Amino acid sequence: MPRGAGYIRPTYQHGRLEFRIEALDPTSKARAGTISTAHGLISTPIFMPVGTAGTVKAVHQRELRNDIGAQIILGNTYHLYLRPGMEVMHNAGGLHRFMGWERPILTDSGGYQVYSLAKTRKITEEGVKFASHIDGSRHFFSPEASMDIQRSIGADIIMAFDECPPYPCEYRYAERSMHMTHRWLQRCVDHLSANGPLYGHAHALFPIVQGSTYNDLRTQSAETISSFDAEGNAIGGLSVGEPAEEMYRTTELVCSILPHHRPRYLMGVGTPVNILESIALGVDMFDCVMPTRNARHGVLYTCQGIINIRNERWKDDHTPLDPQGTAYVDNEYSRAYLRHLFVSNELLGAQIASVHNLAFYLDLVRQARAHILAGDFRAWKDSVVPKLGQRAG
Amino acid sequence: MPRGAGYIRPTYQHGRLEFRIEALDPTSKARAGTISTAHGLISTPIFMPVGTAGTVKAVHQRELRNDIGAQIILGNTYHLYLRPGMEVMHNAGGLHRFMGWERPILTDSGGYQVYSLAKTRKITEEGVKFASHIDGSRHFFSPEASMDIQRSIGADIIMAFDECPPYPCEYRYAERSMHMTHRWLQRCVDHLSANGPLYGHAHALFPIVQGSTYNDLRTQSAETISSFDAEGNAIGGLSVGEPAEEMYRTTELVCSILPHHRPRYLMGVGTPVNILESIALGVDMFDCVMPTRNARHGVLYTCQGIINIRNERWKDDHTPLDPQGTAYVDNEYSRAYLRHLFVSNELLGAQIASVHNLAFYLDLVRQARAHILAGDFRAWKDSVVPKLGQRAG
Repeated sequence: MPRGAGYIRPTYQHGRLEFRIEALDPTSKARAGTISTAHGLISTPIFMPVGTAGTVKAVHQRELRNDIGAQIILGNTYHLYLRPGMEVMHNAGGLHRFMGWERPILTDSGGYQVYSLAKTRKITEEGVKFASHIDGSRHFFSPEASMDIQRSIGADIIMAFDECPPYPCEYRYAERSMHMTHRWLQRCVDHLSANGPLYGHAHALFPIVQGSTYNDLRTQSAETISSFDAEGNAIGGLSVGEPAEEMYRTTELVCSILPHHRPRYLMGVGTPVNILESIALGVDMFDCVMPTRNARHGVLYTCQGIINIRNERWKDDHTPLDPQGTAYVDNEYSRAYLRHLFVSNELLGAQIASVHNLAFYLDLVRQARAHILAGDFRAWKDSVVPKLGQRAG
Repeated sequence: MPRGAGYIRPTYQHGRLEFRIEALDPTSKARAGTISTAHGLISTPIFMPVGTAGTVKAVHQRELRNDIGAQIILGNTYHLYLRPGMEVMHNAGGLHRFMGWERPILTDSGGYQVYSLAKTRKITEEGVKFASHIDGSRHFFSPEASMDIQRSIGADIIMAFDECPPYPCEYRYAERSMHMTHRWLQRCVDHLSANGPLYGHAHALFPIVQGSTYNDLRTQSAETISSFDAEGNAIGGLSVGEPAEEMYRTTELVCSILPHHRPRYLMGVGTPVNILESIALGVDMFDCVMPTRNARHGVLYTCQGIINIRNERWKDDHTPLDPQGTAYVDNEYSRAYLRHLFVSNELLGAQIASVHNLAFYLDLVRQARAHILAGDFRAWKDSVVPKLGQRAG
């Protein structure tokens, strides 16, 4: 299929998301930039904490703002649709007001959770029928429904409704699925063109490149997605079990095709090392549940590597949690204390570890940005990656 | 038994806790005062949040300090002895350093939890043998052991090792138990006289009045306890299932005997109404798990009454959690949002509710103090008690 063939240009123009590139790393594809939204600026590269059901688990909004320095968070359409539901969400005036978060929000399309969480699901050209993982109740998501739900949530950036095939995936399935994702994208665009935002601020639609790990499909999908001239573009279907090398290869390929002057979002990625390597390939935005989910299991990311705070070796370590950490928890609490909280199943353990991990992730992308602006990102990345990935206890 | 007979005066004099009474309510027994400790001042009447295992559940130390305004917290000797254990505690330099809390701490004696939590327990004159509720391991608490554990924890105020009989309790059992508690007190005093504090700051020993709900036993116990001239005195064995009237009657009786110039601590009490009524009887210090435990079940205390935030009626209430509340959570989050967090089993729900309830309790005793200083405590109490106790949703 020739570049963009069969897809009309979107007429949807609610309000263009601005992206200004401020620096390019001379020895990698890394870029530093600024995204402007109705709820404020986002300095890229950026990591977006995942606020599944309208809450970044175990973290107060005030901590996200002041201690973690989150500039944008992610909400999950599937979860919010089921609970609290769109009537409550609409009455609240959208997710910003509902949860008390005045900075930018991005919502996913709901598709990924339907595929991974719902009890049963049936995918057709029209959309996806599924049963809720909570009570088995039956629901239907289509591109149009996803757009309407995300309009009710009122995020600044909303995602196209796609199919995310599993890994590994047969070529024929990946190809058919990719074409359907492209057709669904057009339906998303058409629906948004006919239905404006609900709360007076714009939402930018990001389409999603699919195609599994097949170079020709990824190329075709990236070209089609590019032809939509969206305000930003996402790379989906990665970090679903494939080897890291496949992920990097695919990301590099897709980034080489996606428009240079639009932000690029690599969905669901990843470890600190994954993030730095993908920044080097030209990615600007990331989200992942790892820092919060692992925090709740006592796994901490530090610049010395990954530690499991439950380990016996921390039992009598009364030094600060992370002397090089930037969050207040890093110096307010000791390793022995945090270990005690985890061993004793105390809620404060998850709270401390979640603030630490998210602050570490945000600090990491802040450092990456500073090194891109300074022109030495590649050398810095190569020097820190070996430590970041190692087990340090 | 005549007043104080059979009990020698303590020689223990580590460092006298100062208590200055600043105002007496003209129409009740309420007092406002200040307790001075090595870790700072405590304005009374005061409520002490319960930090069971070295953490006030779901609440950061910073929130306790800045948002709740806690002036002193309580640690449970039984829990801390089992986890993290006294070796870790001693290596940390005591609980203040271990948990990062620089204000005053009070520890209970460990007895109450042994009676209520341990798998098995055998009480003899020597002490209590018990099996841990965590792993069934066998341990022994005596007055001397309790003093040593509390010395290792390093609290500013430590409690005598007592027996807390259940309610109802036969007269003969209550009498025997009370006498043993008095003998155990002398052993606590003797042990502390021979063994100083471990971390350079003093700990004040508070003895505990027992005697169930029998007036003659309570009188006898209060007189005996008074004869020890301790730096503060506690009333134990209440709030264990007896009717509120019995609790108030017993508290009033005991307060009429305990020395006027020493702080009085009513252990394990209670609801907002219980606290105000007991302040009116001359009590200065309170602790209770209700505000935090109930918070984790979605039960909130407000000046309009008690609400269950899980109720359907809050589903679409997008007004602030508590417009009259003093904590940041009260205006940062809405009722509908907090309800959603509880219905969705999100950790942040317990966090928000815990901060709210503790801030409410601390604000309540601050208000009580202000009204005692203003001389209109009784009238104020009588005007707010009817609302505080009602179900408001």
